Amino acid sequence: MFKHVDYLQFQAKPEKPDAFFAAKLQELVGGQFGEMTVMMQYLWQGWSCRVPGKYKDMIMDIATEEIGHVEMLTTMLARLLEGAPAEATEKAAAANPLLAAVLGGQNPQHAIVTGGGAMPTNSQGVPWNAGYIVASGNLLADFRSNVAAEAQSRLQTSRIYNMTDDRGVKDMLQFNLARDTYHQQQWLLGIEQLIADGFTENGIEDSNAEFEHPEANHTFYSFDPESTAGEGRWARGPALNGKDEIIYVPDAQPLTDDRPLGPAPDPKLFVTYDGSMGKGKPGTGAGAHAQGVANVVNKIKGAVTD
Amino acid sequence: MFKHVDYLQFQAKPEKPDAFFAAKLQELVGGQFGEMTVMMQYLWQGWSCRVPGKYKDMIMDIATEEIGHVEMLTTMLARLLEGAPAEATEKAAAANPLLAAVLGGQNPQHAIVTGGGAMPTNSQGVPWNAGYIVASGNLLADFRSNVAAEAQSRLQTSRIYNMTDDRGVKDMLQFNLARDTYHQQQWLLGIEQLIADGFTENGIEDSNAEFEHPEANHTFYSFDPESTAGEGRWARGPALNGKDEIIYVPDAQPLTDDRPLGPAPDPKLFVTYDGSMGKGKPGTGAGAHAQGVANVVNKIKGAVTD
Amino acid sequence: MFKHVDYLQFQAKPEKPDAFFAAKLQELVGGQFGEMTVMMQYLWQGWSCRVPGKYKDMIMDIATEEIGHVEMLTTMLARLLEGAPAEATEKAAAANPLLAAVLGGQNPQHAIVTGGGAMPTNSQGVPWNAGYIVASGNLLADFRSNVAAEAQSRLQTSRIYNMTDDRGVKDMLQFNLARDTYHQQQWLLGIEQLIADGFTENGIEDSNAEFEHPEANHTFYSFDPESTAGEGRWARGPALNGKDEIIYVPDAQPLTDDRPLGPAPDPKLFVTYDGSMGKGKPGTGAGAHAQGVANVVNKIKGAVTD
Amino acid sequence: MFKHVDYLQFQAKPEKPDAFFAAKLQELVGGQFGEMTVMMQYLWQGWSCRVPGKYKDMIMDIATEEIGHVEMLTTMLARLLEGAPAEATEKAAAANPLLAAVLGGQNPQHAIVTGGGAMPTNSQGVPWNAGYIVASGNLLADFRSNVAAEAQSRLQTSRIYNMTDDRGVKDMLQFNLARDTYHQQQWLLGIEQLIADGFTENGIEDSNAEFEHPEANHTFYSFDPESTAGEGRWARGPALNGKDEIIYVPDAQPLTDDRPLGPAPDPKLFVTYDGSMGKGKPGTGAGAHAQGVANVVNKIKGAVTD
Amino acid sequence: MFKHVDYLQFQAKPEKPDAFFAAKLQELVGGQFGEMTVMMQYLWQGWSCRVPGKYKDMIMDIATEEIGHVEMLTTMLARLLEGAPAEATEKAAAANPLLAAVLGGQNPQHAIVTGGGAMPTNSQGVPWNAGYIVASGNLLADFRSNVAAEAQSRLQTSRIYNMTDDRGVKDMLQFNLARDTYHQQQWLLGIEQLIADGFTENGIEDSNAEFEHPEANHTFYSFDPESTAGEGRWARGPALNGKDEIIYVPDAQPLTDDRPLGPAPDPKLFVTYDGSMGKGKPGTGAGAHAQGVANVVNKIKGAVTD
Amino acid sequence: MFKHVDYLQFQAKPEKPDAFFAAKLQELVGGQFGEMTVMMQYLWQGWSCRVPGKYKDMIMDIATEEIGHVEMLTTMLARLLEGAPAEATEKAAAANPLLAAVLGGQNPQHAIVTGGGAMPTNSQGVPWNAGYIVASGNLLADFRSNVAAEAQSRLQTSRIYNMTDDRGVKDMLQFNLARDTYHQQQWLLGIEQLIADGFTENGIEDSNAEFEHPEANHTFYSFDPESTAGEGRWARGPALNGKDEIIYVPDAQPLTDDRPLGPAPDPKLFVTYDGSMGKGKPGTGAGAHAQGVANVVNKIKGAVTD
Repeated sequence: MFKHVDYLQFQAKPEKPDAFFAAKLQELVGGQFGEMTVMMQYLWQGWSCRVPGKYKDMIMDIATEEIGHVEMLTTMLARLLEGAPAEATEKAAAANPLLAAVLGGQNPQHAIVTGGGAMPTNSQGVPWNAGYIVASGNLLADFRSNVAAEAQSRLQTSRIYNMTDDRGVKDMLQFNLARDTYHQQQWLLGIEQLIADGFTENGIEDSNAEFEHPEANHTFYSFDPESTAGEGRWARGPALNGKDEIIYVPDAQPLTDDRPLGPAPDPKLFVTYDGSMGKGKPGTGAGAHAQGVANVVNKIKGAVTD
Repeated sequence: MFKHVDYLQFQAKPEKPDAFFAAKLQELVGGQFGEMTVMMQYLWQGWSCRVPGKYKDMIMDIATEEIGHVEMLTTMLARLLEGAPAEATEKAAAANPLLAAVLGGQNPQHAIVTGGGAMPTNSQGVPWNAGYIVASGNLLADFRSNVAAEAQSRLQTSRIYNMTDDRGVKDMLQFNLARDTYHQQQWLLGIEQLIADGFTENGIEDSNAEFEHPEANHTFYSFDPESTAGEGRWARGPALNGKDEIIYVPDAQPLTDDRPLGPAPDPKLFVTYDGSMGKGKPGTGAGAHAQGVANVVNKIKGAVTD
Repeated sequence: MFKHVDYLQFQAKPEKPDAFFAAKLQELVGGQFGEMTVMMQYLWQGWSCRVPGKYKDMIMDIATEEIGHVEMLTTMLARLLEGAPAEATEKAAAANPLLAAVLGGQNPQHAIVTGGGAMPTNSQGVPWNAGYIVASGNLLADFRSNVAAEAQSRLQTSRIYNMTDDRGVKDMLQFNLARDTYHQQQWLLGIEQLIADGFTENGIEDSNAEFEHPEANHTFYSFDPESTAGEGRWARGPALNGKDEIIYVPDAQPLTDDRPLGPAPDPKLFVTYDGSMGKGKPGTGAGAHAQGVANVVNKIKGAVTD
Repeated sequence: MFKHVDYLQFQAKPEKPDAFFAAKLQELVGGQFGEMTVMMQYLWQGWSCRVPGKYKDMIMDIATEEIGHVEMLTTMLARLLEGAPAEATEKAAAANPLLAAVLGGQNPQHAIVTGGGAMPTNSQGVPWNAGYIVASGNLLADFRSNVAAEAQSRLQTSRIYNMTDDRGVKDMLQFNLARDTYHQQQWLLGIEQLIADGFTENGIEDSNAEFEHPEANHTFYSFDPESTAGEGRWARGPALNGKDEIIYVPDAQPLTDDRPLGPAPDPKLFVTYDGSMGKGKPGTGAGAHAQGVANVVNKIKGAVTD
Repeated sequence: MFKHVDYLQFQAKPEKPDAFFAAKLQELVGGQFGEMTVMMQYLWQGWSCRVPGKYKDMIMDIATEEIGHVEMLTTMLARLLEGAPAEATEKAAAANPLLAAVLGGQNPQHAIVTGGGAMPTNSQGVPWNAGYIVASGNLLADFRSNVAAEAQSRLQTSRIYNMTDDRGVKDMLQFNLARDTYHQQQWLLGIEQLIADGFTENGIEDSNAEFEHPEANHTFYSFDPESTAGEGRWARGPALNGKDEIIYVPDAQPLTDDRPLGPAPDPKLFVTYDGSMGKGKPGTGAGAHAQGVANVVNKIKGAVTD
Repeated sequence: MFKHVDYLQFQAKPEKPDAFFAAKLQELVGGQFGEMTVMMQYLWQGWSCRVPGKYKDMIMDIATEEIGHVEMLTTMLARLLEGAPAEATEKAAAANPLLAAVLGGQNPQHAIVTGGGAMPTNSQGVPWNAGYIVASGNLLADFRSNVAAEAQSRLQTSRIYNMTDDRGVKDMLQFNLARDTYHQQQWLLGIEQLIADGFTENGIEDSNAEFEHPEANHTFYSFDPESTAGEGRWARGPALNGKDEIIYVPDAQPLTDDRPLGPAPDPKLFVTYDGSMGKGKPGTGAGAHAQGVANVVNKIKGAVTD
C-alpha cells in the first residue's frame, strides 16, 4: 500500500516559462528511458521479487522514489508551460498571427490536450507503453537491465541539461544526474551482493549451462573478411567463466549444410509451391492447425486410458 | 553492404512438427528480447559507431550474425508448422470438427496470415516495434544495454528450452544458449576494453559529472519506515567512484517545501481554477503557445539588428 | 448497409490555406477524442446493441453523422494544405532555401505521405488505434463513456477554436462545438431514458451488487495525513444508493496483514529465490504451465467417465 | 513524494493456483480500463490539478489508493501462477508431453517473460499504453471520464467475478466491486461539488458557448429514413440548458451545397489531377510546405520592421 | 455525408454459435487486411481524391460498401458468440469447472470487454491502427496498394473459409470471396483507365523520372555468389519502359569506396569517439541542434535585408 | 547466413549538414514504406518462400540489397546531423539562446536519444513496427504488395527529392529513385513469370474460386444515387477472367432482409437487453465461454469413445 506526502522530493522551480524546452523535456518523462519507465519497471520487479527482506525492500524503496520523480517532472513541465505576460504577447501576436509558424517547436498537445500540463509521451509525442518494462523475476538479469536503464537515462538527462540556461531547471537536473549516478552503482552493487549471497557465481546468466553447445559459448565469429574485431579483448584471452580461452574465427562459414527452406506446404493454405520437396501434407482445411488436433486427441486418449 | 550465403549458420531441424511449441517460440523471434531486437539493435549501434576499427567491426560482426539467427528461427518455425500426415488427421478432424477448440493453443496467424511460416510478433501476437531498440552513440551505455539484452534473451531461451523434448529443437537452442553466454561476456569485456582504452574511467556513465548534486550521488533514500534495505551493500561501504562513502537515509523526508502545484492557468485553455494563485496569464488564445511567439520575435529581432 | 451523399453535412471552407494550423487540427481527426474515435465508437456500440428500436436507431444515427464529420474535417484539412501562390513563393524560397527551417511547424507527412491531404493521426503524428474505442454492450456504461468523449472532444475543439482567426474555419468549428454540446446532453438524456425504461435504477453500474464488500462501497480512504479531501461532498452525506452514509477514513491503514509477496517459484523458471518460503513446486519444465496440464487431465477424465 | 507500506490494502489470497484464470485476470491489470489506467489517470490528473485543497487532495488520495490496487492484483496473479504439486504433475506431463496443447489457455509470457508473475498487459497480451490516460486539466470533463472508467472497470470486474469459484479470488474482487461502486459515486458527487462551487453551471462542458451554432446545439439529426430514434427523450423535450426545446430532424439532408473535394494540388507532389479545378499552385518543390515559408518570411519582416 | 439502411448488404446467419471460430474470424475484421483497413483506406483515398467524377465516385462507392462489410462481420461475430443452451451447459460446466482450461481457444475479451460482441482487433487481440492505411493522393500508387490489399484479404478469407463447416458462415464468406475477386479486378481496371485517360504512361510510378540514375533503373544486383536469380524474367529481357534491356550483375560489389561512417560527433553529446576523424564540431550545448540556429539566423537576415 | 562488406552500396555524401532535412528524411528510413519495411518484408518473404531456385534467390538478393539501403540512409542521416562550425554558432546562440525556438523543425531525439544519428522511426517520431510487413507465403499476393510498396516508396522519395538542393543528397536519392523504378518492374515481371510458370492463370488471387458467389464476383454496386462511377472501365466490359461481363448496379439495395442485430445476450454478461428476442441463453457464469466448454466436452468424449 502507498501513501502520499504533498511535497516534492526535490524542488522543481524554473526561473521562467519555456514551452520549447518543455517539448524536449518530455523525453525524460515518457520516453523509452524516462521516469515512467523506471518507476513502472522497479514497481513491477519489486512486486515480482521472491526474496523477502533487503532485496525486495531495496527495490520497493527505489520504485517509490521514482513515482516521486515523475511527480517532480510533471510539476516542472506545468511550470515551464505557464502563459506569457498577457498584454505584450497578445499585441505582438495579434499583429503577426502567422508567426504561429514557429509554434512547431512547441508540443501542440501541451495546449490542446492537457491545457498546459505534461503529457505521458516522449519528446515526439509517442505515448509511453509497457513494452519498455523489464521484469523477469531473475534478479541478476533484471539488475543488468536496471544498470543499463540508469546509464541511458543519465545520458539523456545530461544531453538535455546542456540545452537550457535556466538556473532552476539545471538545479533539478543536477539532482537527477546525481540520482542516476548513484542508481547505476546501486544496481552494480546489487550484483556484487547477489554474488556474495551465492545467487550467481560470476554475474553471467547461465541457467541450464550444462546443456550449452561447448564451443559456441566462447567463440567470436567474424562475418567480414576485412574485420579488425579480433584485436579486442572480447576476441582473445580468458573467458569470464575462468575456464575457456576465447576463440576468434575470422571470415566465419556456415556450421551446417542445412539450407533455410521450409517444408512442403499444406495445399489448402494456398502457398506458392512447385512440388520440388514432395507432396504437401494437407490437414483438414485448417492447415497447420490440423496437426495439433491429432496430437491432442491421441494424447488425451492416452491420458484417459492410463 | 551485405551479402547472403544460402546456408544456415547452425542447423534448425526439429524431429517433428509441433505447432503448439511454435506459438511459444515466437517470443524468441519477435519479443522484447527476441532475435529481431538484437539484430536491429546491433545494426543500429554499428551504423552509429564513431570509433572506426575494432569497435565498429566488432559490433557489425555480431549484428551480421544476428540477422542469421532470425533466419535460423524463422526456418525452425516453418518446419515446426509443417502439416500433419494427411489421411489420419483429415479423418479424425472430419469426424470431430469442433475439436478445433483446442486450436487455441496454436497461433491462428500462423495459418491465416503466413500460411505456415513465422510471424514478426511475440508469443502473444504483438508486432515487434523499434521502441525496443537501444542505440545512443555512447558505447558504455549501449554495451550495458547489450549485456542486459543478452541476459534477458538467454533467460527466456533457457525457459523455453525446458518446454520441449524435441531433440532437434533442443540442439539449436543449445547453440543459442551458448551464443548468449558468450555475448554477455563479449559486452562485459567490451566495457573492460573501453576502460583500457581510456573511454571511461570506471564504467559508470558520468558525463557532466562536475555538475552533479554533491550528496545525492552517493545516498540511498528509503521510503518505508520498516524497510531493511539498509542491510545491503548498496546502502553502505565505499561508492564506486572510489571517493565517497554511501549514505543511508531511513524514512526519507522531502528535501524541499516545494509542493507539486502548477501555476495559474491561461484562462483561454478552460482549465478548472479557483484563482487562489492569482490571475492567469493569458496568451493570444493559443494558450501556452503564445509565450514562445514573443520570445522568438524578440530574439530574431535581436539577431537581425546585430 | 450505408449510402453516401456527395455533399458535406456542413461547409468546410477556410478563407485561406494555413498548413501550420492544419498540423494542430489533426488532433480533432485522429486524436484520442478525435472524430475517428467517436465515429468508430458509436458504430461499434450500435452494431453491438441488443435493444432494437429507439436505442439502436439513435446510436446508429449519430454514428452515421460522425462518419460525415470525419469527411468534413479531412476536406477542411486538404483545403488548409493548398499550395501558396506560386511565383512569389518560389522566388522567395529559391533565394532562401534554408528557410525550410521553419517548416518544422508543419506536419511533414502532409507533404511526403498524403500529398496535401489529411493524415489518420493525431497532432503529433501518432496513428489512430482501436484501443481508443469503448463498447461494452452495457448501455449505461457506454453512455457514460460517450458523455465523457463528447466533453473531452468539445474541450479540445474549443481550445483549437481559439488558435485561428480564419472566419471559415471558425464557422465549421462553431457547428462542431454545438454538436458536442448537444451530444453531451443526448447521452445524459439517454441515461435518463434508461432509468425511465427500467434498465438501471439510479445510473450506477451495479451488476452483482449483492456480492459487494458491504463497507468499501461507501467509504473514502485518504492516504495523506494532511489531506483535506474530507471537506468535499464525496466524503460525507448520503451515498447515491439512497441507503448508506458515506464514511471518511483519514490516514487509511492496510485492512489486512497480508504482505505483497509471491509464493516460492518453480525452480525451472530460474527466478531468484532464497528458499525462505519453502521448497518451490516444480512443474515439467514448463513451469507455471504444468499446473494446468494436471487440472485439465483430471477434469477431462472426470467428464469422460461420467 | 510517496511512501510505501509493506502490506496490501486488502488481502489477495486465492484458495489454489489457477493459471487459466490468471490469463483472464490480466484484463483488470493492463487492459484499457485496468488498474494501471486508473492509477496513471488519477496521478496525472492530480499532478495537473490547479485547484489546491480538497479537489487536488481528493484526486491524489484515490490515485495513491490505485497504486496499491495494482499491487494487490500483481500479488494475486503471482499466487495464481504458483507451480502445481511436483511429483504428480511431472509424471503426468512426462507421460503425455503433448498435452501441452491445452496450454494455449495459459498466457505463455507468464512463464517465458516474468517467470510466474503478472505481465503489464491486457488479457490478450497487448502492452498497456499511455494512450488510455485522460487528463485535460478541466475537472468537469475529467470527472466525466472518471465516472465512465469506473463503470467500465466495474463491469469487467463483474464479468470476471463470474468466471471463478475460488473463494479467495472472489473475496478480493468483492472489495474491488465495492470500490468501483463508490468511485463512480465519488466522481458524480465531484461534479455536484463543481456545480456547488460555481465551476460549472449545469455539468455540460460549454467553454466558448457564446460562439456555438445556435440551432445545431439542440437538434437531433437522423440519417435513416426508417429510424425510430425520435421516440427517445434525447429527441424531444427541453434541452439541459433550460432554454431550448430539442428539435428532431428525420431523414436529415446536407446543410450546405459544399462538396467534399480538395483544391487543385501542387504539381510537384505528383497527386493525380485532371485540371478541372484550375491550375495547381506550386511551391518550391516542398509542396504544401512552401506556403508556410512565404507566410513566415512576410510576418517576420513585419515584426522586425515594426 | 452518409446515410444508414437498417439491413445488411448480405445475410450473416451462422447455423450455430461457435466461439472458437469467432476468435479466428477477428482477423477479417481488425487485422492488417481486415475490413476495417479497406473501409478506412478507401474512405481516406476518396476524401483525398482530386479527380472529381468517375474516379472519386468509384472510390467512395466501394468505401461505402466496405462500411457495410464491417457491419456484416460484426453481426456475424455477435451471432457466433451467442450463449449455449443453458441447462445442459450449466450442468456440465458446474461439474467440471476447470474445463475452463480449453477456454484458451476463445478470445477472453469477447466475454470480458464486449459482452458477446466483436472486438476491433485482429485474431491475436492487437487493436487495429491507422498505420495500416495507404492513401497518397497518387491514384496509380494507391490502386496498386488496393490490388494488393484485396489479394491479401481474399487469401486470408479463403484460408478461414476452410476452417469451418458451418453452412451459414460459408455462405457469407462466399460473398466476401467474390467481392475480393471483383475488387482486385476493379483496381487493375482502374489502372487501365488511368492509362487510357493519360494519367500514367505505363503504370509505373515514375515522377521525377528525368533525374533517375541512368543504369540503376534497369539493373538486377545479386548479393549471393551462388544465386540463380538471373534465370528469371526480372533479370533479362526488355524493361517495362520499352527502352532499356535489363542488366544482370552477379555477385555485386559496392559502387563506391564510401564507408558507412558518421562524422566526428559534437563533444557535448557524449558520443564515444577516439578523435580519428579530427575534432568534433561542437554546438551550443544543444548538439546537433546548434547547426540549424546558424542557418536560420543567416537566412532570415537575408530575407529581411532583401 | 549473412556477411558484411564495410563499404556502402552507393555513396551517401551530403554537401553540408542539414538537421532540418534530416528530420524529414526519417520517413524514408522508418516510415510505413521506408527502407526498414522493404528490408524486413523481403527478408520475411524470402525465409517463407517454398519455391527454391530463382524465386527464392531473387527475393533474398533484393532483401540483402535493402539491408544495405538502410545502411546508406543511416549513414546519410548521421552526416546531415553533423555539428555546425563551432565558434560562430556558439557565439550566435549564446547571444540568442531562445532562438532555440526554431529547433522545433529538428527532431529532438536526434540529439537526445541517438547523439547525432538516425532514429528507427518515421518523420513524426513513430517507431517502426512489424505491422507494416506483408508476407503471406503466396507469391502472387506478396508480389502485388511489393509492387505497391515500391510505388509508394518511390513517390515519397520523389517528394522528398524536391525538398533539398543539396547535390550530394540528390545524388543518392537519384540512385534510390532508380532502384524503386526497377523494383516495381521486377515484381511485375515476377508476376509475369508466375503466370509463365503456371503458378497463376491470370494474376488474380482466386483460391477456392469454385465456391465464390457467382454474381458478386463481377458486379459493381454503387451506393450514391448520383454516382458517376458507372462511366469507368471497372463498371463495364469483360471481367478479367475472360468469361463474365461486368454488371453495374446503380443505387444498390440490400440483398437480404437480414437486419444487423445480435441474438439475446447471456444475462450474466450484463448487456443491456429488453427481452424482445426471447430469453438469453446463460452459460456457467463465464458467459460466451460456456458454449465452447460443452462443445469440447462432447467432442472429446466422441474422440475417446471412438
